[in-house]
Amino acid sequence: MKISVPATSANLGPGFDSLGLAIAMKNQVIIRPSKFHSVSLKGEGANNPALKDNNMFISIFNDFYHNLAVKKRHYRFEFYNEIPLSRGLGSSSAVIVSAIASAYAIEGIKLEKSKLLNLALAYENHPDNITPAVMGGFNVATVQENEVKFINKSIPNILRAVVVIPNRPISTQLSRKSLPFKYSKEDAVFNISHSSLLTAAFMSEDWRMLRTASLDKVHQKYRMKQMPELFDVQKTSLRSGSLMSTLSGSGSTLFSICFSEDAKKIEKALKTKFPHFKVFTCDFDNSGVRIEI
Amino acid sequence: MKISVPATSANLGPGFDSLGLAIAMKNQVIIRPSKFHSVSLKGEGANNPALKDNNMFISIFNDFYHNLAVKKRHYRFEFYNEIPLSRGLGSSSAVIVSAIASAYAIEGIKLEKSKLLNLALAYENHPDNITPAVMGGFNVATVQENEVKFINKSIPNILRAVVVIPNRPISTQLSRKSLPFKYSKEDAVFNISHSSLLTAAFMSEDWRMLRTASLDKVHQKYRMKQMPELFDVQKTSLRSGSLMSTLSGSGSTLFSICFSEDAKKIEKALKTKFPHFKVFTCDFDNSGVRIEI
Repeated sequence: MKISVPATSANLGPGFDSLGLAIAMKNQVIIRPSKFHSVSLKGEGANNPALKDNNMFISIFNDFYHNLAVKKRHYRFEFYNEIPLSRGLGSSSAVIVSAIASAYAIEGIKLEKSKLLNLALAYENHPDNITPAVMGGFNVATVQENEVKFINKSIPNILRAVVVIPNRPISTQLSRKSLPFKYSKEDAVFNISHSSLLTAAFMSEDWRMLRTASLDKVHQKYRMKQMPELFDVQKTSLRSGSLMSTLSGSGSTLFSICFSEDAKKIEKALKTKFPHFKVFTCDFDNSGVRIEI
Repeated sequence: MKISVPATSANLGPGFDSLGLAIAMKNQVIIRPSKFHSVSLKGEGANNPALKDNNMFISIFNDFYHNLAVKKRHYRFEFYNEIPLSRGLGSSSAVIVSAIASAYAIEGIKLEKSKLLNLALAYENHPDNITPAVMGGFNVATVQENEVKFINKSIPNILRAVVVIPNRPISTQLSRKSLPFKYSKEDAVFNISHSSLLTAAFMSEDWRMLRTASLDKVHQKYRMKQMPELFDVQKTSLRSGSLMSTLSGSGSTLFSICFSEDAKKIEKALKTKFPHFKVFTCDFDNSGVRIEI
């Protein structure tokens, strides 16, 4: 059995805690019956001894497996992870979704995606990473009475993501602490209108609107101050032809969207100027979590 | 020559200063050459002596006509106005759009709708009434460097507006003053996510999402406190089957959206409970400003 979950970019531009999309980099786990529980990890995080046993996965998996399994069995979990950790690309959400999906799939119990999403919410209380991780594509999401309410739209193949991953993280906690407690009416209205416009642009595939619609006054500048070089990454990306360029999640990844024919030029400009950062082009993911029995 | 502009409902739910739509009630002006300028007004506002000469229309018309006209002529302007004044249904925006469109049309100069919109912005600095007045349908709009940036979507005929117009206004100025200067991060995020979700619901015609997506924490409750009966109107409308029910503009009109088959029931419930208010069902307008030569 093979379960894969895509990387995600949340807090998309003005869509703080609201908008997210899925990128075609995945955390994949292959599950086989075994004499005892065991875990292996290749790819991102493999050199981190704290992650060797993938405790977060096993802990969430057990939360469900203990209740679902009629007869408990043992498994070997082999991870192949492409999602860098602590870089604002939804690595935790991928593990949460993967663990819940695994417990149900092993027991052969069908799990609706909307139910999986609501179960994941117990482990990650912002909906903008888990929703694209489960659904794929572009997503608007909010939480009402412990349920994720969302609308989903696939992203066409004419677009690419150009991802710039810095060589160090911005702490999510520190990043959240850097935000103001209160916002002026003007800033609130700015983000209400721009997040709505960004949503309309994705829904109607009006890509020329992304540049304006992706502007933000609520979170990016506060977080990017912790790694000022990111302002320069953003400028370089936009000047080289990106349709939009925003902080991914709470950083430190800077994430751009462009037409496929412009990707190489943008990637090259970023690689040249920021040789110490990892820069690559990537497709979007419109499938979300995938389970192969 | 005949020019008509629809009524509009702005500040739609969470979409403060951002979302608006057009309703099939219109302000129409018939223009004929005449020996001297003269104005007549029938319908809404006809009994208001201050409006007898429709000074706002004439003043804006002249701003443009003086520059456009090669040889100045005189006209008779006959207004037939269905849009009640000072009730949050965009009566001023309709006059602004009508006046600019008239000056160009009289001179036979073609005016793109996007240009008309940017000209109107000089007289009304929030874009959420003028955009649907010009474009019709549902609109997301923001202003960037004195230009309206917007995305538009038509509203299908399966939906109806149920409009409740109180017997007195809420002052727009007072209504704006009642709003807080600052918002908590939680309230700002609530409206960012809900306004984005409401946009996605209109764009994808996911009408079952309207109930959740139309919730607001930024303006409605502050304004509706000035006419507390409106909370009861809202409840009655939603309980009778409306998909959403929100303050229109800065009030005092309460505006609901429902499936056409539910409109009669909702209208009846509202009429029975609020006999002192004007209650009626209306189509949406997907044309915006219309010019018949």
